[in-house]
Amino acid sequence: MNKKLVCEFENLVGRENVMAEQADRQAYSYDSAVLEPVVPALVVRPETSAQLGKTVRLCNENGLPLTVRGAGTNLSGGTIPAAPNAVVVTTNGLSGIIEINSEDMYAVVEPGVITAQFAAAVAAKGLFYPPDPGSQTVSTLGGNVAENAGGLRGLKYGVTKDYVMGIEFFDVNGELVKSGSKTVKCATGFNLSDLMVGSEGLLGVFSRIIFKLIPPPKDSRAMMAVFDSVEKASETVSAIIAEQIVPCTLEFLDNFTIRTVEDFRHAGLPTDAGALLLIEVDGHPAGVEDDAEKIRKICEQKGAGKIQRAGSAAEKDLIWQARRDALPALARLKPTTVLEDATVPRSRIPEMVKKIRDIGEKYHIDIGTFGHAGDGNLHPTILTDKRDKDEFARVEQAIDEIFEAALAMGGTLSGEHGIGLAKRKYLEGETSRGTIRYSRRLKETFDPVNILNPGKVIGD
Amino acid sequence: MNKKLVCEFENLVGRENVMAEQADRQAYSYDSAVLEPVVPALVVRPETSAQLGKTVRLCNENGLPLTVRGAGTNLSGGTIPAAPNAVVVTTNGLSGIIEINSEDMYAVVEPGVITAQFAAAVAAKGLFYPPDPGSQTVSTLGGNVAENAGGLRGLKYGVTKDYVMGIEFFDVNGELVKSGSKTVKCATGFNLSDLMVGSEGLLGVFSRIIFKLIPPPKDSRAMMAVFDSVEKASETVSAIIAEQIVPCTLEFLDNFTIRTVEDFRHAGLPTDAGALLLIEVDGHPAGVEDDAEKIRKICEQKGAGKIQRAGSAAEKDLIWQARRDALPALARLKPTTVLEDATVPRSRIPEMVKKIRDIGEKYHIDIGTFGHAGDGNLHPTILTDKRDKDEFARVEQAIDEIFEAALAMGGTLSGEHGIGLAKRKYLEGETSRGTIRYSRRLKETFDPVNILNPGKVIGD
Repeated sequence: MNKKLVCEFENLVGRENVMAEQADRQAYSYDSAVLEPVVPALVVRPETSAQLGKTVRLCNENGLPLTVRGAGTNLSGGTIPAAPNAVVVTTNGLSGIIEINSEDMYAVVEPGVITAQFAAAVAAKGLFYPPDPGSQTVSTLGGNVAENAGGLRGLKYGVTKDYVMGIEFFDVNGELVKSGSKTVKCATGFNLSDLMVGSEGLLGVFSRIIFKLIPPPKDSRAMMAVFDSVEKASETVSAIIAEQIVPCTLEFLDNFTIRTVEDFRHAGLPTDAGALLLIEVDGHPAGVEDDAEKIRKICEQKGAGKIQRAGSAAEKDLIWQARRDALPALARLKPTTVLEDATVPRSRIPEMVKKIRDIGEKYHIDIGTFGHAGDGNLHPTILTDKRDKDEFARVEQAIDEIFEAALAMGGTLSGEHGIGLAKRKYLEGETSRGTIRYSRRLKETFDPVNILNPGKVIGD
Repeated sequence: MNKKLVCEFENLVGRENVMAEQADRQAYSYDSAVLEPVVPALVVRPETSAQLGKTVRLCNENGLPLTVRGAGTNLSGGTIPAAPNAVVVTTNGLSGIIEINSEDMYAVVEPGVITAQFAAAVAAKGLFYPPDPGSQTVSTLGGNVAENAGGLRGLKYGVTKDYVMGIEFFDVNGELVKSGSKTVKCATGFNLSDLMVGSEGLLGVFSRIIFKLIPPPKDSRAMMAVFDSVEKASETVSAIIAEQIVPCTLEFLDNFTIRTVEDFRHAGLPTDAGALLLIEVDGHPAGVEDDAEKIRKICEQKGAGKIQRAGSAAEKDLIWQARRDALPALARLKPTTVLEDATVPRSRIPEMVKKIRDIGEKYHIDIGTFGHAGDGNLHPTILTDKRDKDEFARVEQAIDEIFEAALAMGGTLSGEHGIGLAKRKYLEGETSRGTIRYSRRLKETFDPVNILNPGKVIGD
């Protein structure tokens, strides 16, 4: 980028908050998706809302593509710079929790607040912020909102979108737009704040977010159930839901994942199990005991082998460690990990898990599947080596088939990772020509110069 | 409307589904807001999605303003035809429940389905659709979505928006746009379905809506608590929330409303009470007994006089009858009822109730206040006679002050009734110039000819 323009950014945010050196810019060229890196022209770190707005305007005035980046844990390429002349705007200088209001049960935050830190601050005040995406110890609330991040608690507690009460964001002219409210109910004007949720950086740049908080559950019970087949585990999931029990978490691990985690952690997982279900119920003490007992019975009826109930916080931790280990353990196997999240209605999980297995065999690639069995959001995890062109070509074909299968089953391309670059080409297939047109018109209206994370989601 | 154009509509939907006679059109000239009626040029009743789409296109091609109407229970003028050349599109020919899927807990409906009928059909399948706007026995799901309707269960169960999983809608060209999914989690493309929620007929015309369903609560407890002052009742509300009890319903009636309801129903309500709280908790049987007991203690501590717990379904019904009677009883007092819904953070309820009382005294007008104390959504109900120009001028000034007060307390213009015509002028004050601009750009993009319910929400 020419020095004059760099100087303008430096004047805005201060010299120390602008990174122009090659080595620095390299660090912002990729995210957690397995896609080609793009080194941005500049990295800018605003420290106030006013600086953020002016940064957006300066980019727009100069036709510079702008990609906002929280922690870059994005799994679909949403935080890969759009082009070599792009500016990456990092939000870690905007990481203040402005307010946690216990009485009216809301919080106001800047976009760069780290999710788990926010959840802890909220818990310290005796409240609860449920969305717990796998990336939460590093990802940011702004990123979570841009992607409508999910997590393990989605079935009972919903996802990020369910907790957004309002957003203040900058349009491309650096003008502040406000939508939503600090009140539980709001029917005032267009629902622009929810339009921003899942907009993946394309429609506005967040300055403040208002989140809903809820009371924490009073008690919980956790258990692990072992099945000799995926089908039995899946039928158990359906039976639990049919009993109208809504666990706060209902996670699934397939045999490949179980063996891989055991190899990593040596915690004594049953390596010959067809599938594991990790289940947690929460709520009123009497209610959770009731639910836990019902679930235990259902697991038995459906043919579970061992059912291990956690008797203490430590035991509960061990159960969940198996789930937390899934991705890091799988990621050790090969140099490249492609984590997908095609989602189906939960009744189709057995079919989908079988389909993924068949696809893995068809293309001779390794796929471990774990995920959120309660809401149909599975994570087929493909282990490969991107440098092996032949194998990676097979991986890409396998991914195509996984998406086709999910859509054929009435599912959706993404449960929680977003469309980004990775799934653009499938979007019309799931929706319609009219949807793509409407979305593009939306984009063109709010970003006529096409600077806000261009090329993502709906292409150009 | 010229005969040729009328014929085009008749060819589309059939002669029997087009109303051109003056007497018929009169019936569609007003809604439940206290505003001037506007007789539309034509009323059209499509019976299929395809007819609906073509109707929209035909209106757009001929520059005819189009107002969609469910039951016309709209309280902000959203269903008053926009102009004398307008077409009203009624949805009562699109009233099919397409699917209720118990296993995956969703339903697909046409927009003209009556809310209470839907809730009953869902209950018959052992599931629960919580949003219960006061109009539910006549209002339609399409209307509820367009207004983001609320109801009594908002505090615990959320509002209509929290149950919309996806929408298929027509743009002005009659092209179908799809957003959302039948899966619990969806991070696929722009959140157009939530943009449609609360869009008050301005951005698209709904063809299908996918709703989330949840398991019904297993048990419930209801009670009525009598207070000699509004302050004590409000402090009780705050204390209940502070104990992290989330009642499914927490309703408030002021003295004016209590006396009016007693005069109507003669059920034995305490006419010298400063305020009544009507409370219901639901959930696990042990949990509700726990919560009910805690609430009873809190009411006592805060100085409640009588606390009456419902011991049977019939007694519970009597308690809720008082609340259901509030509006009809008040509406008997004078020819004109103006039902407002300025909403504040719940901690500001005592202040707001006092302010409303002061405003009533200042302008010498009768205001009864009841509403959703748990979420701050109060309904100051002004009883007047529109034909008395002097009094109505004072009413309009009083309403201005009520909105100013709500905004000054960090609240919002509308908790659940929408902006429509009635509150357009205040919208910028609550949001920002940038918000109005962004909203208008949105509108212009999707409705370049300005036919979809023009003039509402953001003006022209």
